[in-house]
Amino acid sequence: MSESPSPSTLAELVQWGQNHYRDRRFNKEEPIPTRPGLLYFAHEGVVRLTSRRANPSESEVNSQTSTLLGLIGVERPFEILSQQLFVMETHAHVDQTAVVWFYWNEITQWPTLHLMIIEIFRRQHQFQLSWLSLLGQKNTIERLLSFLALLMTEYGEPIEKGYCLPYALTHAQIGQAISSTRVTITRLMVKLRQKEIVWLKDDLLCLDRRSFQQFRPFKPL
Amino acid sequence: MSESPSPSTLAELVQWGQNHYRDRRFNKEEPIPTRPGLLYFAHEGVVRLTSRRANPSESEVNSQTSTLLGLIGVERPFEILSQQLFVMETHAHVDQTAVVWFYWNEITQWPTLHLMIIEIFRRQHQFQLSWLSLLGQKNTIERLLSFLALLMTEYGEPIEKGYCLPYALTHAQIGQAISSTRVTITRLMVKLRQKEIVWLKDDLLCLDRRSFQQFRPFKPL
Repeated sequence: MSESPSPSTLAELVQWGQNHYRDRRFNKEEPIPTRPGLLYFAHEGVVRLTSRRANPSESEVNSQTSTLLGLIGVERPFEILSQQLFVMETHAHVDQTAVVWFYWNEITQWPTLHLMIIEIFRRQHQFQLSWLSLLGQKNTIERLLSFLALLMTEYGEPIEKGYCLPYALTHAQIGQAISSTRVTITRLMVKLRQKEIVWLKDDLLCLDRRSFQQFRPFKPL
Repeated sequence: MSESPSPSTLAELVQWGQNHYRDRRFNKEEPIPTRPGLLYFAHEGVVRLTSRRANPSESEVNSQTSTLLGLIGVERPFEILSQQLFVMETHAHVDQTAVVWFYWNEITQWPTLHLMIIEIFRRQHQFQLSWLSLLGQKNTIERLLSFLALLMTEYGEPIEKGYCLPYALTHAQIGQAISSTRVTITRLMVKLRQKEIVWLKDDLLCLDRRSFQQFRPFKPL
């Protein structure tokens, strides 16, 4: 194992993980093995975080779906909670998703990085508060529009007429994020496309600037 | 203004705020004035964090409800996001709720405390992931039981037969937390009381140990 100096940036942290053989690459939809107590870090691609019931009742076993908890992009940490009623799972959301991992006691010996990483968790906490707020809306169309605006705040790439997501998202996955179903999301998306509020560009979902500004749950800090 | 040494514990931080006249006390249901960019800290009582639509549509203006985002107990920090589609609000959930506040650049000059505070935000992020997971359940009774178990994990005081919350929570507030209504929560609570899964002790809600273990979303770290 090569001796490597203490990392002090996120890029050096990824390099440190690679030098210590803590780097693995996944294809789209491949499960990413994780366990509680470790800290994970995607340095390429996108990780999808979901939860599902650990022991679904008999009536649910065939209809069981996961809940989408987050899409974790490059330079963002994630960790897994210990299984109880729910199991938390991670999948590569796109091809060539690369993940490094660390023990927390490795991270805490590098104070600058430790601070940097838990500051990102503070921002993710704010993101989750926005998510909880938008879930409180009774109309599915409003939950849908503010969920899309929230995703664009965090991940959207600006274009002339609005913002586009850098990765695909299925109607089923959107439904799993906002307590709805694939069928309902598909029906609402047809309406929104007719009104040119959303559209596809190379299979990626885009949202017009005006709806982004109107439905964004909170202004970013 | 008295000279005070740099605080290095949460108790000393509260003392520092008090020495700098940053301390205010609120009665039950009194709004707590907050603004984005500051860090708040309850040192007595409980703060209730909610969000509501900033500009409800005409059809909603009479039926508008808030969404419950959190109940913040002693020694836990909170902050407010900038208004957009939603407004975030804070109220004293119980009498004698006392809050101190700080500017972030005050906190960052005390590295030990800074780390301590954002570590609590990391734990709150995990709490929110549990909350999002339980909201994904289709049956309201399951959302209700796992929400109660989640609250007990964080705030519950152990008794022989289970756990009790240290503060009251109305059926309307529970409904606002799990996308349901006061009427539905009241109906389900009657059922749960008949089965002795929940009961009241001095007006405080208690949950039996077995349901706590069964419906707890995740094991705490």
